[in-house]
Amino acid sequence: MMSDSIAGIRLGVAQAGLKVADQDDLVVVELASGTRTAALFTQNTFRAAPVLVAERHLSLNQGLTRLLLINTGNANAGTGAMGITAAEKCCDAVADLASVNCSEVLPFSTGVIGEPLDADRITAALPSAIQNLEADNWQRAAAAILTTDTRPKLRTIDVDVDGRVCRITGMSKGAGMICPNLATMLAFIATDAEIEQSSLDKLLRRANSVSFNRITVDGDTSTNDAVTLSATGLSGVRVDSETPAFAEALSTLMIELAQDIVRDGEGATKFVAICVSGGETQEACEQVGRTIAHSPLVKTALFASDPNWGRILAAIGRAGLSDLITDDVSIRVNGVLIAERGARASSYTEAQGQTAMAASDLKIEVALNRGQAEATIWTTDLSYDYVKINAEYRT
Amino acid sequence: MMSDSIAGIRLGVAQAGLKVADQDDLVVVELASGTRTAALFTQNTFRAAPVLVAERHLSLNQGLTRLLLINTGNANAGTGAMGITAAEKCCDAVADLASVNCSEVLPFSTGVIGEPLDADRITAALPSAIQNLEADNWQRAAAAILTTDTRPKLRTIDVDVDGRVCRITGMSKGAGMICPNLATMLAFIATDAEIEQSSLDKLLRRANSVSFNRITVDGDTSTNDAVTLSATGLSGVRVDSETPAFAEALSTLMIELAQDIVRDGEGATKFVAICVSGGETQEACEQVGRTIAHSPLVKTALFASDPNWGRILAAIGRAGLSDLITDDVSIRVNGVLIAERGARASSYTEAQGQTAMAASDLKIEVALNRGQAEATIWTTDLSYDYVKINAEYRT
Repeated sequence: MMSDSIAGIRLGVAQAGLKVADQDDLVVVELASGTRTAALFTQNTFRAAPVLVAERHLSLNQGLTRLLLINTGNANAGTGAMGITAAEKCCDAVADLASVNCSEVLPFSTGVIGEPLDADRITAALPSAIQNLEADNWQRAAAAILTTDTRPKLRTIDVDVDGRVCRITGMSKGAGMICPNLATMLAFIATDAEIEQSSLDKLLRRANSVSFNRITVDGDTSTNDAVTLSATGLSGVRVDSETPAFAEALSTLMIELAQDIVRDGEGATKFVAICVSGGETQEACEQVGRTIAHSPLVKTALFASDPNWGRILAAIGRAGLSDLITDDVSIRVNGVLIAERGARASSYTEAQGQTAMAASDLKIEVALNRGQAEATIWTTDLSYDYVKINAEYRT
Repeated sequence: MMSDSIAGIRLGVAQAGLKVADQDDLVVVELASGTRTAALFTQNTFRAAPVLVAERHLSLNQGLTRLLLINTGNANAGTGAMGITAAEKCCDAVADLASVNCSEVLPFSTGVIGEPLDADRITAALPSAIQNLEADNWQRAAAAILTTDTRPKLRTIDVDVDGRVCRITGMSKGAGMICPNLATMLAFIATDAEIEQSSLDKLLRRANSVSFNRITVDGDTSTNDAVTLSATGLSGVRVDSETPAFAEALSTLMIELAQDIVRDGEGATKFVAICVSGGETQEACEQVGRTIAHSPLVKTALFASDPNWGRILAAIGRAGLSDLITDDVSIRVNGVLIAERGARASSYTEAQGQTAMAASDLKIEVALNRGQAEATIWTTDLSYDYVKINAEYRT
């Protein structure tokens, strides 16, 4: 067994011809009987057919899901009633092959929005995916779910819970249309720990709020975002929502997977952590972080390695904080104090700023000095290649 | 007299060397005694020094402003207490030259944020600006206030009020950092109508809400946004806030000036009107329009002339409307029905979509079918040149 495998989980990969010819684009994740699954879905009002079907199946099977069915190349979003039928047809077909109920299958799709999903291509490729189900197929599966991503995102962590070890492995995909809201891009996480449904739901929700919900590439929330956490229980290690070692490891792994998405962001040349501290609430800090992260002017300055802190300051000023005392705000980039008291720091030199901005990993620290809360948002710059990728995608 | 001149208004232009050598960058607008001025300023919390000073002076002179002093090349924003001193020094100097009170001067600045303003350069150039005060200097003044703009924005309209004619002339500047909130980029509008202060304030506020507040290039609200409306009264035509012909003409002129800014948006290759109808409130329609207008994925698709309506649909879905019934939503581009009932319209062909998107002027119509309200937002695409301009500005 590979070091990323999870007892009770097998993955099968096939080529349905949805993305391009001769490329993996279909993944089946088989979960052992008794496995509990929690899931979070996009908050976009236009929810893709697979999101609607997965949510319904999850409520029918009460967390006792047996199969995840993931395709790339087509999002099956904006496809109306026909899309629901196509998603159900794929679930039916794989349920038959694996001898489980249709409602024990959760479908996930990613790719172009608005094109009808060709369910026949998927059902034709399913037997091949079922045939190659293997516990050590995570790497191949992580590659198969990609769209404009340039590399697979796969992470594993071993957790010591009171002297006994369990494992968490997860894979994610996403490079554009990244601004999750309660849910996120596609991410599938599994553990061999034994966790009751209510604890599983809580653990996923909490870890998601500090990981996938803290990243943004372009501020666009997808119609298909989903993240799942499946617990097979086969390690015999019992965990609940109050097990700190497990909760911490899960957050760490999900933050890594989320940061992997940002680092692989469309056209990204910088990885930027925006750390906002001294806010009255965590939400207020997130709001400031997001406003900076979404500013095209900040993002183009980051691309140019230009210490144009005035654009950061302008973004803070329009973030909607009431009664912000601008004189209290300070800005640091990679440790260099750039602005304080609403103006350039007296100690600051342009040379310092240029050196700080030249790094490919940037930490922008904004101190609001009006409270104790803090939050970090991870994002990228806005480059020619972002425009190129998104102007040419679909053509 | 040129046809854009306003009785009681003279404009002087000079070169202070703030932008580049040998280029106009300083404008003085002289308002005849008795002229009433209304103004709106940026809602960004980080308000530039000239905004703070102009607001204070306006409250001191109670609308009886005598001079507008405008410089480009430096925004005097993020400059702290030093910036206030510099703005006051410039006001003092021009007040002395024109024999008015310092509080009768409103200063306006645009350009780089965070660099100290060299007040001495401005005071040195002021005598030259005062010397060439002319009523027919609007065109030269409109060119002098530009930054990354490629062309001046100057509009004139004659208004028939019950058989008597008055005139409105306005100039605006702005090409990036464009997402006004109650106020806008720099715009200076003047009329020879006679209008009391409270009517003047109302007229400006109303016309602004359907013009400058409806445009966005990049979602970034500037620290320096300002729009003024000055009424000299010298035509003898009396107007109040309920004079429909005048209010309509003012809205028309301000919409033209606002659209001129969008058409000259940084790197813009498309002029896009996003018309959202069938909302419960005008605010809800604006919110949907803005979310579409700010989506980098929509904007790059517009740049590529790609009828990728799935991105428009995804933007509508994350615009925050509660209980949106996605099946009720339809999308048209330049008259072509693209999507309805949450999916591609059955009548739609890709060829139709491509023809519609190829135009440089686009009208995207979104029908929400949940109410009677409507609103239009004007915006641009996101091109390589937007990135280029903003990655290279300041270097």
